Amino acid sequence: MKNYTSINDIDNIDTWISEAKEIKENPLKHKALGQDKTLGLLFFNSSLRTRLSTQKAALNLGMNPIVMNVSGDAWGIEFGDGTVMNGNTAEHIKEAAAVVSQYCDIIAVRAFPTLTDKAKDESEQVLKAFVEYASVPVVNMESATGHPLQGLTDALTISEHAKTSKPKVVLSWAPHVKALPHAVGNSFTQAMQKMDVDFVITNPEGYDLSPEITKDTPIIHNQEEALKDADFVYVKNWSSYDDYGKVLNTDPSWMITKEKLGDAKFMHCLPVRRNVIVEDAVLDSDSSLVIQQANNRTYAAQLVLKKILENG
Amino acid sequence: MKNYTSINDIDNIDTWISEAKEIKENPLKHKALGQDKTLGLLFFNSSLRTRLSTQKAALNLGMNPIVMNVSGDAWGIEFGDGTVMNGNTAEHIKEAAAVVSQYCDIIAVRAFPTLTDKAKDESEQVLKAFVEYASVPVVNMESATGHPLQGLTDALTISEHAKTSKPKVVLSWAPHVKALPHAVGNSFTQAMQKMDVDFVITNPEGYDLSPEITKDTPIIHNQEEALKDADFVYVKNWSSYDDYGKVLNTDPSWMITKEKLGDAKFMHCLPVRRNVIVEDAVLDSDSSLVIQQANNRTYAAQLVLKKILENG
Amino acid sequence: MKNYTSINDIDNIDTWISEAKEIKENPLKHKALGQDKTLGLLFFNSSLRTRLSTQKAALNLGMNPIVMNVSGDAWGIEFGDGTVMNGNTAEHIKEAAAVVSQYCDIIAVRAFPTLTDKAKDESEQVLKAFVEYASVPVVNMESATGHPLQGLTDALTISEHAKTSKPKVVLSWAPHVKALPHAVGNSFTQAMQKMDVDFVITNPEGYDLSPEITKDTPIIHNQEEALKDADFVYVKNWSSYDDYGKVLNTDPSWMITKEKLGDAKFMHCLPVRRNVIVEDAVLDSDSSLVIQQANNRTYAAQLVLKKILENG
Repeated sequence: MKNYTSINDIDNIDTWISEAKEIKENPLKHKALGQDKTLGLLFFNSSLRTRLSTQKAALNLGMNPIVMNVSGDAWGIEFGDGTVMNGNTAEHIKEAAAVVSQYCDIIAVRAFPTLTDKAKDESEQVLKAFVEYASVPVVNMESATGHPLQGLTDALTISEHAKTSKPKVVLSWAPHVKALPHAVGNSFTQAMQKMDVDFVITNPEGYDLSPEITKDTPIIHNQEEALKDADFVYVKNWSSYDDYGKVLNTDPSWMITKEKLGDAKFMHCLPVRRNVIVEDAVLDSDSSLVIQQANNRTYAAQLVLKKILENG
Repeated sequence: MKNYTSINDIDNIDTWISEAKEIKENPLKHKALGQDKTLGLLFFNSSLRTRLSTQKAALNLGMNPIVMNVSGDAWGIEFGDGTVMNGNTAEHIKEAAAVVSQYCDIIAVRAFPTLTDKAKDESEQVLKAFVEYASVPVVNMESATGHPLQGLTDALTISEHAKTSKPKVVLSWAPHVKALPHAVGNSFTQAMQKMDVDFVITNPEGYDLSPEITKDTPIIHNQEEALKDADFVYVKNWSSYDDYGKVLNTDPSWMITKEKLGDAKFMHCLPVRRNVIVEDAVLDSDSSLVIQQANNRTYAAQLVLKKILENG
Repeated sequence: MKNYTSINDIDNIDTWISEAKEIKENPLKHKALGQDKTLGLLFFNSSLRTRLSTQKAALNLGMNPIVMNVSGDAWGIEFGDGTVMNGNTAEHIKEAAAVVSQYCDIIAVRAFPTLTDKAKDESEQVLKAFVEYASVPVVNMESATGHPLQGLTDALTISEHAKTSKPKVVLSWAPHVKALPHAVGNSFTQAMQKMDVDFVITNPEGYDLSPEITKDTPIIHNQEEALKDADFVYVKNWSSYDDYGKVLNTDPSWMITKEKLGDAKFMHCLPVRRNVIVEDAVLDSDSSLVIQQANNRTYAAQLVLKKILENG
């Protein structure tokens, strides 16, 4: 594996989960592997978990992390081909990606979607430009349409907490005041499709994720029906995909409650808005796996970095 | 000691000062102690000395420091209990503190007061929330009402420069154009109350610090009288405590001059506004200990981190 | 060498280039030299290459880099002598520089010019204040009038790619929409004056660099004539020096094209505005050395830090 840009880069998710569990048991075992290597973390957007867990993963592997807030610390970056750059952008991605490759052995990038320009977002302009113009491997720390470090984390967490050989996993939409990306929902869906689980998605009408992602995964517009007998309920808001980036529905009856959850485990990638996405009673109970998920972010990132370093 | 949130966490200040002096003589002696441990430094507010000295202290102990500007790098954090989070905050402190605990072995936090809501500031909402919801030790890098790394630093500096067994130490208010917190004045007062010094406070009427802090320390409203025979003059502005957060007085006659200082040593936590708080002639003379204080910030932080690591 | 503030600090550029080439061949050879030493990188302005390459250089030498965005992370700094600081600045450079010296073994500073106050810019207020008030060595990461890490980089790059014993090097002005500093042009000119090259500068009338920099270097106002038989064409925009900081000319006929370049190598410090400064066809061809220059930034910085550490 050269780059890790999508869940599709995982050749065998069961093997990866086993390897992640081994890393978690002995996180410092491969500390020599990254010695004198540098991980550049480039943030076009805010980050808490990804920022800290990816640095921690790099440190566990003996790497030196270097963090840059691209917007605040550097200049506006141009992505267009052939542009006459007499506007607000001062450096072209062709130079920026090649230059960062001179100082970093791996480049990790976070760049959110516009949520206004569907074609641009689906083209994954920023991430793909780094892959194309960087001379070193690139890791996706959440792009316009995917968050594969989170998806891998979630697969690991479900594997750790599953009590049956083929658990029922439900991805449920929940209401939110702002328009949010599809990245987490997409990568979770792709990860579940690779696992031996009984997976369904539930969301209001008008909120179906891209059919290129959901494929033949059942989408049930009745939340109560979808949640029946669930072992894991993964909750996440996203804006409409069909009416791209719009908030069509904030119906609070889609919020997850303790009653709805029943005996299932609750999962969320965080940050989560309490009493909007899910009620306090769920988050403050033992049914919630959100902190374990956050913890697993380190080991998912560490597995990805390890695989890239071993390949290099 | 699990957390270091206040001068009250110092069990015996004389022992601590001795230990800090030992660290200063050989700062790298305990470099193995923090190996493969991470210190998360979370800044809700600006910082120069604290930011650099705490990182330096961590490095001297072999730790990996990870710095985050919470406001700029992440999202608005919610502290209220039971809030329906459909406003500007995107993550609750319950999740944020627990999540950061997954990546960091110690969390250090800086969060200034509002200076408009006395009850909220005195409740130490941010610091206390980290102590409650983090699963790892928490260090106060200046909170609403205290700056105990500074107070410990100042105690160490006075001990190093004292020429008598019981020096006279004066904490003097000085004028300033903006409303400043009480944190430094409070922690210095608490540190002096634990040391064998002759300690008095001088400030204009209306500027007495909280009586829960000053207790039976003499407060003298006549600066000239208070400064008589002083060995150390610690200068600091703070806004009114009674008329909470207000600037009632900017009387320049309270500025410290070389004449007023006499043979005493001048101390200030920095940053200091020259010719407002103190005249150039003092800062540019050998009477000033401000740079030695800044240097001692490293050893105070290192002692605190060492004690926490040894306890862990 | 105590400080590295200007190309004038290079005693023998040929020796320095040889030493930089040795470092480039074995970048980790001197990793013990910087062990337990800290490099403070203080940014008053944006940075990509300098920020990353200087950190990478420090890491290669075993140093711990600590980065600070002075404007965002700390407070306004006062540079005036005797100022009554009751305005927007909260800390005087006398304290700031002395304080940072307590935590860092070397201080690297970036501070751009005003481009409105020629006298202030030429006085190099920020850089000189750090040199004066810091108690540790200071490295210039681009100041008002010079960028000597870039100039050293460029000398190294020309030495690596020269095919004749005395190549012809042309520094050509190119158009730009914004007023840019003279720092890169100045330091490149000074570096070339120290090397055994045939060096000329070409720019429109009204754009001559300071005569104290250019000295007896030929300045040719006809670009075509200047470019004849060039081996290296170093391109850079700068605002007018005579009509200080003004954009007098944006004539696109000064843009560098593949045709103009001929067989010469193209150089630029980056970031570069494509199709304004230079056309895509040049940057996307093998004639461009810009990525090699960016790579050499690490070794130039590493040589400077190594010399300072060896001297310390």
